[in-house]
Amino acid sequence: MNNMLDDVEEILLMGPGPSCIHDSVYDALSRKTLGHMDPYFIHIMDEIKRLLQIVMQTQNKMTIPVSGTGSAGMETCFVNLVERNDPILILINGVFGQRMQEVATRLGADVDSLEFEWGTPVLPDKVAEKLRSKDYKIVAVVHAETSTGVKNPVEKIGEFIRETNALYLVDTVTSLGGIEVATDSWGIDALYSGTQKCLSCPPGLAPVSFSDRALDVILNRQNKIPNWYLDVSMLTKYWEGQTRVYHHTAPINMLYALYQSLLLIAEEGLTEVFQRHYENHKKLVEGLERIGIQMLVAPEYRLPMLNSVVIPEGADDAEVRGRLRQDYKIEIGPGLGPLAGKIWRIGLMGHTAREENVDRVLSALKEILNR
Amino acid sequence: MNNMLDDVEEILLMGPGPSCIHDSVYDALSRKTLGHMDPYFIHIMDEIKRLLQIVMQTQNKMTIPVSGTGSAGMETCFVNLVERNDPILILINGVFGQRMQEVATRLGADVDSLEFEWGTPVLPDKVAEKLRSKDYKIVAVVHAETSTGVKNPVEKIGEFIRETNALYLVDTVTSLGGIEVATDSWGIDALYSGTQKCLSCPPGLAPVSFSDRALDVILNRQNKIPNWYLDVSMLTKYWEGQTRVYHHTAPINMLYALYQSLLLIAEEGLTEVFQRHYENHKKLVEGLERIGIQMLVAPEYRLPMLNSVVIPEGADDAEVRGRLRQDYKIEIGPGLGPLAGKIWRIGLMGHTAREENVDRVLSALKEILNR
Repeated sequence: MNNMLDDVEEILLMGPGPSCIHDSVYDALSRKTLGHMDPYFIHIMDEIKRLLQIVMQTQNKMTIPVSGTGSAGMETCFVNLVERNDPILILINGVFGQRMQEVATRLGADVDSLEFEWGTPVLPDKVAEKLRSKDYKIVAVVHAETSTGVKNPVEKIGEFIRETNALYLVDTVTSLGGIEVATDSWGIDALYSGTQKCLSCPPGLAPVSFSDRALDVILNRQNKIPNWYLDVSMLTKYWEGQTRVYHHTAPINMLYALYQSLLLIAEEGLTEVFQRHYENHKKLVEGLERIGIQMLVAPEYRLPMLNSVVIPEGADDAEVRGRLRQDYKIEIGPGLGPLAGKIWRIGLMGHTAREENVDRVLSALKEILNR
Repeated sequence: MNNMLDDVEEILLMGPGPSCIHDSVYDALSRKTLGHMDPYFIHIMDEIKRLLQIVMQTQNKMTIPVSGTGSAGMETCFVNLVERNDPILILINGVFGQRMQEVATRLGADVDSLEFEWGTPVLPDKVAEKLRSKDYKIVAVVHAETSTGVKNPVEKIGEFIRETNALYLVDTVTSLGGIEVATDSWGIDALYSGTQKCLSCPPGLAPVSFSDRALDVILNRQNKIPNWYLDVSMLTKYWEGQTRVYHHTAPINMLYALYQSLLLIAEEGLTEVFQRHYENHKKLVEGLERIGIQMLVAPEYRLPMLNSVVIPEGADDAEVRGRLRQDYKIEIGPGLGPLAGKIWRIGLMGHTAREENVDRVLSALKEILNR
């Protein structure tokens, strides 16, 4: 039979994720599969936890990759912490804030939201005001809103939450490994990420971390977690302790790849990685502005790894992206929701954030748009 | 830094999964990552669905791999079909039947169970009797009970269920690709599997399939599915139709691997694959009996891919498994639950089911046990 994999091309992944993968991560993926209870594999698990703690800047013991994609990480944080009728506040300025609202609502939480215009950040003062009006069990926000390219002021919002009893839940899917995520010093109680953004690992795993305070809430629930697969109290027994208890069969090869991608970040150094993202972002923005393409987001709220640009007048959204993919082997992302047809999303995530890639997408856009 | 992946050994995986992986599947894993909305990747998705339909022997349109391991497949089937207080019957004769009960209970179902001794099969007549006593919305059973090595009479049980209005939900995690799973002709409405058993792909994906009848139930629920990540009504929109709707970022490289492993099965032919499992099982059982090791399960209910053997008197469970792993680079599985310390589980799943592997485990056991 014809094998479709023989015709998989190498595409420069400059969309909202997945991002480009380092060769050593591809190699890691295809190492020999070990059993999920194998003693050597358990050492690798321990090392993954340690490396995740470094990247997440946390001492949280419960810092593990969940066996699903970033959205499974979101589901994990909410389903473990939320019980029916719990008062929850979600801060929304894009698709992923909306998704949090949907996930929490489906779990029967009493969900309030504060909404901000897409393309603008969450305003901490508005949050502080809202927090004075009601006692929330959880306040949740997206750090890097992938749908708009906005960086939300997670540290500042955390200062207000700390004055209440609420748990602080943060989506770091797109931010982790690209900009600072200082879990402990920002007072974050639960966070989740995805492997296919700035960690530059294929999609399939969701790193999560819970503070001891969040774990206390989980271990003292009134009702069992209504999701066996993502039950953190059971996952802990597989990921921690002298004797490991089988829960589900861990995705071994994906975990090899995550190990390798975390090792690359640790070796380069967090500061250096963040700097590389920032420098390439700056270069991209300058280049775009030189050919008359405008950024959606104000400079102080821009994410380095996700650049939302306004589609120039006269340019056909689908046609330009189609030509980039077809003729230049470059993927960029379309707009989502109300921004569909209005913006493109150019990713500079992880291994993608390199000068030669910035040059390549700029020169392709210049040619296609005749600038 | 020291790279732990450099010391990953090649272990002969003869436990309850993961199983041995074909080189071409390792190669598939490390093909260049494409975007989850990439047009070529969508062609690969279509082909995965077609190949899954072949292996599952079904025309069900909704036949897809879920982005999680086998247990996520279980969660998917239950969370989509079950609403609070729904009457559900679970047939239990091992760990995975118990897990179904736990998953359904956590979702608020009104769960009845029929239990059978571990190591013996579910008895269809008892099921028929139970079905006369109450109207169930769902009846669920494990086809191949991985914890005991018992094959349950799924076809026969289905005949009785067909006389009622109940949906038939079957766990085919360990059976799919090793023995016949005739989804449509056995009247199965929902089934799930895992990639790391007889499909011989690394762990990380859960193929599922839903009949049109099951889909009707899902699309006409009273309440939204309390699990956004595994919502089949949304997954359908990503996996089907002319225009695909983004749901979550699919685990691209794992899907390449699944494609390749399904292709290998299709190329070898289902009948040939089943025969290979059966022949190697026969050879293993004969060899074990020759060295005085007894099978747990009666011949007519034995699974070819999961052989439960009684630990011989005088042999130390952990020590023997430890020596197999350390000195012979072979993994076999321990007993679970009430069978812990009493049985070993020797897997002959997928690519593992080969004569040279049977010879290798037999000669290792012979040496270690001085037989």
